[in-house]
Amino acid sequence: MFPILTVTILHTHLFPYDSVELSENREFIRIVDQTLLPGREVFLNINNPEQMYDAIYTLKVRGAPAIGVFAAFGLAICARNTEATSVEAFLDQIKVIKHYLASSRPTAVNLAHSLDRVEGVAFRAASDGAGVDEITRLMMTEAIEVKDEDIRRCLSIAQTGCALFNPGVRVLTHCNAGHLAVSRYGTALAPVYLAHSKSYAPKVYATETRPLLQGARLTCYELKRAGVDVTLVCDNMAASLMQSGLIDIVMVGADRIASNGDVANKIGTSMIAASAKYWNVPFWVLAPSSTIDMGCASGRDIVVEQRDPAEVTGTYLKDGVVTNGVEVYNPSFDITPRDLITGIITEDGVL
Amino acid sequence: MFPILTVTILHTHLFPYDSVELSENREFIRIVDQTLLPGREVFLNINNPEQMYDAIYTLKVRGAPAIGVFAAFGLAICARNTEATSVEAFLDQIKVIKHYLASSRPTAVNLAHSLDRVEGVAFRAASDGAGVDEITRLMMTEAIEVKDEDIRRCLSIAQTGCALFNPGVRVLTHCNAGHLAVSRYGTALAPVYLAHSKSYAPKVYATETRPLLQGARLTCYELKRAGVDVTLVCDNMAASLMQSGLIDIVMVGADRIASNGDVANKIGTSMIAASAKYWNVPFWVLAPSSTIDMGCASGRDIVVEQRDPAEVTGTYLKDGVVTNGVEVYNPSFDITPRDLITGIITEDGVL
Repeated sequence: MFPILTVTILHTHLFPYDSVELSENREFIRIVDQTLLPGREVFLNINNPEQMYDAIYTLKVRGAPAIGVFAAFGLAICARNTEATSVEAFLDQIKVIKHYLASSRPTAVNLAHSLDRVEGVAFRAASDGAGVDEITRLMMTEAIEVKDEDIRRCLSIAQTGCALFNPGVRVLTHCNAGHLAVSRYGTALAPVYLAHSKSYAPKVYATETRPLLQGARLTCYELKRAGVDVTLVCDNMAASLMQSGLIDIVMVGADRIASNGDVANKIGTSMIAASAKYWNVPFWVLAPSSTIDMGCASGRDIVVEQRDPAEVTGTYLKDGVVTNGVEVYNPSFDITPRDLITGIITEDGVL
Repeated sequence: MFPILTVTILHTHLFPYDSVELSENREFIRIVDQTLLPGREVFLNINNPEQMYDAIYTLKVRGAPAIGVFAAFGLAICARNTEATSVEAFLDQIKVIKHYLASSRPTAVNLAHSLDRVEGVAFRAASDGAGVDEITRLMMTEAIEVKDEDIRRCLSIAQTGCALFNPGVRVLTHCNAGHLAVSRYGTALAPVYLAHSKSYAPKVYATETRPLLQGARLTCYELKRAGVDVTLVCDNMAASLMQSGLIDIVMVGADRIASNGDVANKIGTSMIAASAKYWNVPFWVLAPSSTIDMGCASGRDIVVEQRDPAEVTGTYLKDGVVTNGVEVYNPSFDITPRDLITGIITEDGVL
């Protein structure tokens, strides 16, 4: 297991906050509003279901693991706030709130899973004869454990990934798989933070990640904030960096991993992988094991969601730049075939 | 040679204007101001050296062949406007204007070449004993021939490229190598226009081409204007299209072709080529033979120019989107190695 000293160093020095935090009195969830980054760091204290739904739905909190932790805290706080006195009435309210929160992003598997976990504790405790206060306490303990587990997973990923680095390593990453997307440290960026805390002086090239620019907005922000050397490139410049011998390793996260090793991740990942293969740069995927979907045989079974054309034509572009009324194809992610992937790192090591 | 009927059909039906036109009285060059596209179609009538320099320098006219034609007309018009009465004084003025125009984009090979050609006619005619009026007339004839030659080259490229199409062909292109970049028809897009005029119903996927968005701004504009079915994608979506079986062929232009067949083109081209190789999509380069630089042994000899970081962080992005003060790597083009290229088409056929 990871030495606890390193954990402390990583946290104290690099991150001024976690993406999802419980207030000291356990009455609020505190998040940074990610829709306002990098321009403004606005922290929100959230304690009712409507605010929770809104925060997830409008992407104020994003990243599958971060949403899972947020929802776990959310359900536990809502449980404390019920005015139910009977266990039966209490459980009825929990069920309603849970379904409401789960509907905020129905396809996010971590969200549903975390909510099931915290709700499950309540129902088990009730059937064991616990009262409302005791159930409420157990739910909060479970929610805290959801976050702690995620932190441990990220630390384990950090350690395995960091073993691939030499001092001065130059890492290319895509989208945002850093501390803003998880409970702490990140997945693809976790090894970078660990290397940085060990004075390995890693250098990161971050792709801007069109259309929603998570790289330019979030990855650059969080790395720069932590003092990591980061350089922004457009998505189409990744191969140019490889040609110029400027990249030692590619590290990306994953949205879903099929049982054959095909990886669904942010749109553009597979082009970086094909380029890495051609220019002989190792291409690694880093993700918690919960990302692996054994019910999914290969990438062909993963349905790629089409998103709003306005993300491409507007949102972050100035008005009038794109030809008016042009048709747009805007898939949210793509499939990287397993033979383009050097290896997959989870909390259990290298797959 | 191309049947003249098809030429007429292509021009009349598809293009409301050429990127560079000579006015009927031969006193002005008429261009569409490409910096204002696609939002506004503003036409400029240009007849003095300062306006010509500005139009090239500020990219109101762009695309190496288009600049070449523009400069040829420019020098011929300036020659008509001199008040010199002696041939000697006339030639002195021509030399000064030529050097001034050539300095507007010193690295553009077509610009220098066209100016040399029109100037060369003047000096040869003078040494043959021609007077100012006769020299002026010959310079204009040469400038018109510069454009006519470029049109013929593009038509020949169109014909060779179109032979690769089946009806309903789906073409992926990058940046803008269409009629706005040349005298007429385009290079990479010339076969598409020909196919369209033959009712082959080609479908084009145009990458937006970060950072300056020539795809989103110019390629989509000119194809849509001509009635060609065009769909915009972000640069990082090219492989996703290929994975989904939506691309039959990739067609791109070239900035410079080394004698071994390596191709320098707009940044991002090599990632599309590596993806096309992996997903078995033919990848073709279309360019006039003047793009081939026999003095350049391979892509390694081509120096990749770094451009202003503000192109990535600002220009077409809204304020505050990109992390403030982040370092930026912004190469203008990349090298596609010859083994990723299915073939190169010039006016002389397939190389």
